[in-house]
Amino acid sequence: MDPKLLTGSLLIFLLVTVKSWGQSDSSGMSPGQPAPGRWTDDSVMIRRLADTILTDARTYDNLKMLTKKIGARLSGSAGFYKAEKWGWAALEEAQADKVWMQECMVPHWVRGGRDSAAWWRAGDKRPAGLDILALGNSQGSGPAGIEARAVLIHNFDELERRKDELKGKIVFYNYPFNPLFVETFQAYGDAVRYRGAGASRAARYGAVGVLVRSMSESVDNVPHTGAMFYNDSFPKIPAAAVGLRDADRLAAALEAYPGDIVVTLTTRGQMLPDTLAHNVIGELKGSVFPDQYITVGGHLDSWDPAEGAMDDGAGCVQSIEVLRALKAIGYHPRHTIRVVLFANEENGGRGGRKYAEAAKANNEQHLLALESDAGGFTPRSFTLSLTEDKMAAIRPWLDLLRPYGVYAFEKGGGGSDTNPMEAAVGAVVGELRPDSQRYFDYHHARTDVLENVNKRELELGAVNMAALIYLVDKYGWSGGQ
Amino acid sequence: MDPKLLTGSLLIFLLVTVKSWGQSDSSGMSPGQPAPGRWTDDSVMIRRLADTILTDARTYDNLKMLTKKIGARLSGSAGFYKAEKWGWAALEEAQADKVWMQECMVPHWVRGGRDSAAWWRAGDKRPAGLDILALGNSQGSGPAGIEARAVLIHNFDELERRKDELKGKIVFYNYPFNPLFVETFQAYGDAVRYRGAGASRAARYGAVGVLVRSMSESVDNVPHTGAMFYNDSFPKIPAAAVGLRDADRLAAALEAYPGDIVVTLTTRGQMLPDTLAHNVIGELKGSVFPDQYITVGGHLDSWDPAEGAMDDGAGCVQSIEVLRALKAIGYHPRHTIRVVLFANEENGGRGGRKYAEAAKANNEQHLLALESDAGGFTPRSFTLSLTEDKMAAIRPWLDLLRPYGVYAFEKGGGGSDTNPMEAAVGAVVGELRPDSQRYFDYHHARTDVLENVNKRELELGAVNMAALIYLVDKYGWSGGQ
Repeated sequence: MDPKLLTGSLLIFLLVTVKSWGQSDSSGMSPGQPAPGRWTDDSVMIRRLADTILTDARTYDNLKMLTKKIGARLSGSAGFYKAEKWGWAALEEAQADKVWMQECMVPHWVRGGRDSAAWWRAGDKRPAGLDILALGNSQGSGPAGIEARAVLIHNFDELERRKDELKGKIVFYNYPFNPLFVETFQAYGDAVRYRGAGASRAARYGAVGVLVRSMSESVDNVPHTGAMFYNDSFPKIPAAAVGLRDADRLAAALEAYPGDIVVTLTTRGQMLPDTLAHNVIGELKGSVFPDQYITVGGHLDSWDPAEGAMDDGAGCVQSIEVLRALKAIGYHPRHTIRVVLFANEENGGRGGRKYAEAAKANNEQHLLALESDAGGFTPRSFTLSLTEDKMAAIRPWLDLLRPYGVYAFEKGGGGSDTNPMEAAVGAVVGELRPDSQRYFDYHHARTDVLENVNKRELELGAVNMAALIYLVDKYGWSGGQ
Repeated sequence: MDPKLLTGSLLIFLLVTVKSWGQSDSSGMSPGQPAPGRWTDDSVMIRRLADTILTDARTYDNLKMLTKKIGARLSGSAGFYKAEKWGWAALEEAQADKVWMQECMVPHWVRGGRDSAAWWRAGDKRPAGLDILALGNSQGSGPAGIEARAVLIHNFDELERRKDELKGKIVFYNYPFNPLFVETFQAYGDAVRYRGAGASRAARYGAVGVLVRSMSESVDNVPHTGAMFYNDSFPKIPAAAVGLRDADRLAAALEAYPGDIVVTLTTRGQMLPDTLAHNVIGELKGSVFPDQYITVGGHLDSWDPAEGAMDDGAGCVQSIEVLRALKAIGYHPRHTIRVVLFANEENGGRGGRKYAEAAKANNEQHLLALESDAGGFTPRSFTLSLTEDKMAAIRPWLDLLRPYGVYAFEKGGGGSDTNPMEAAVGAVVGELRPDSQRYFDYHHARTDVLENVNKRELELGAVNMAALIYLVDKYGWSGGQ
């Protein structure tokens, strides 16, 4: 820049503004600047993977197609079968050597129509609506709905203490996410039992329906559905998730007027017989060990109220991108790389179990089964089911991943789709762990749409997945020491 | 949970789903689980800071007030003076020992009305609108606007080569963000010269106006304004930023029909005389070294088209929260902690320069001048202007920050508001570095609104800032070795 063309203030301004960001540039962050030293070749390969993923819009465009042209795709729904076809085509377009479908019986739950609920103080009938979503797998109230007094229950201990008060009542579980968990999946793990088991636990004591505070900590009021499961020993009562602001209002009313709040609840859910669906699978054939596999995947099914952009469209398109990028840079994997779009995770986990059963039946050897099912957010780490010895052996790889966002390997499992592979065939299982703060804002809610996915965060997840798979393929778990 | 109440499938499902996230829990991530070893006391203190910040909604509520009750607040505007009063009140509410205003003359630019632009192919007048925003500090075209043939220029080298073609033309700089920079601020640093200096460089060769591709890589079409500066030697021609999709369309038309594309441009900007504003400052008095300071701040001014939620409402409320949280847990700082809400960053950098001048004039000693001006996104690192020796000394602190998101200290400066403190009084300067991927989606655009801030990401930024300041206050730069 010609200094004569700059006024003093512009020069100072630009220097001051831009300086620190430029200075903190460390190796690998700039185009074409591989890390020095022993990992130079790998650094160059990973930079090439990043270059193709960050400049080719396939990851995002694929997600756009899946969310905007197909949208919701609960297992067994028409949307799901369209998604199967899309997945097949996307894997072929990504240049998989082979694409096929693996049959998988899946649960087939339908919402059956619009859910609704309202409450009022008895004797003062001015109903206030509740923004709700029937829980997945739950049985509807029937079109007439149910009407009953509500009981505010904070946790299962309180439920047991007050079991004699529940007959004929609608139980409202108001167990919030604990904000002190920095990792939001821990808050989810802590709270989700009320969604999963709350209905049957209340039905055991004669409750006629349950409302559950949504599994979220968001500032909005959208309800978050998700799987529940009945215990067949007790009546199958209706169950729905309530938006957080409505949950706060209802809880306040129940605190102020216990025993005096009436709730109506109408849901129309129905569990139909299991139906046939497919895991959609694409492969890059291994050049040295074609019968040894590295699996990477996400689940194709999504809940019905939205587009399943984060959960788990992101994981599907990232997994497809891993294959495309490896092929695009001309890398010939030593082991066979398999991309799996699992048929059913949300309300049954059948896709992952089926894949593991088949792997076991075929006596397959798997180095790694990796998944992405925690949203297309900025990457931070991978969990891996490795011993501390092996973890230490691969830790130097972090120097290669850090420029793209992943700075830690954590002891942990995969996700629900890959975990069965550990017991079935002894695979190392793992999961991409992107930043978790926004995940439960959108999870299983109407807001899980493409607009809430950042293109580059999505792509960087794929970069790190491709890089890890490249390294595992090249060095195995010895880490190349 | 009573196993009798669980069906087999629920049990398996919940175990599989929740397992990995629970397993990977490492120290400090769970409520009340301090890291073991030498840093136990500090870990407990930092956990207490996190607890109050993550459970008290002050950070987010303050940002809501600033964005929704006040909104845009360019220096010199009515909104800015409301924001000064808000800042004073917020610092008092946070229990600052002392709050005051530091006078600061600021530039006073006004947009003057709605900007507009359109283009068409000569001889085929069907104008297509362009979504534009006049650049800050630019002089308007006048209400009649200008109309001229457009010239597509990709970079300053091309501008110089084609200088003879520019007379009477509107220059369209279409220099994109380089997607290969993983850190988006590097792409910004690479491209922003076209916004800052492009008008005068084109005016030198007789151009009558400039359009600049917005400094962004977003998937939408919103234009992104920002400061430009004229070189007084050349005519002050109008200048505006164009949304990215419109920029793509205009560039395609200019490629197809060079010399044949006409553009109209109407902007109404005006630079008024400098006016008086204030840095708003709050202090917690130091108990051991009251005359030694740790400064933490953000800038109160914002561009006019939106609410300045990310830029830099987030930094303001995080800085206020640092003071509030330290006070709330009953910590008595050894040094005086100063929160500064800077009067002018966007179009002049006057607030930071004024603060540094005053610090020098008063011969103040400053350990650290830290700022947050990169958005309220999930925290990743701090830049600090430390020597490698001192950096090594404090690196063990990362064990204390990692549970809350910061995993690296990087050699670098502060931001535009704190950098002047390095030269003025020899302060170590630094900046919170949250994840950068989404920043330029919203930066200086209509989309910089509260709805795009995640409450918990914002709070975690404040947690890490409070923790770093606590550690600097306690140990200084020796790191407590």
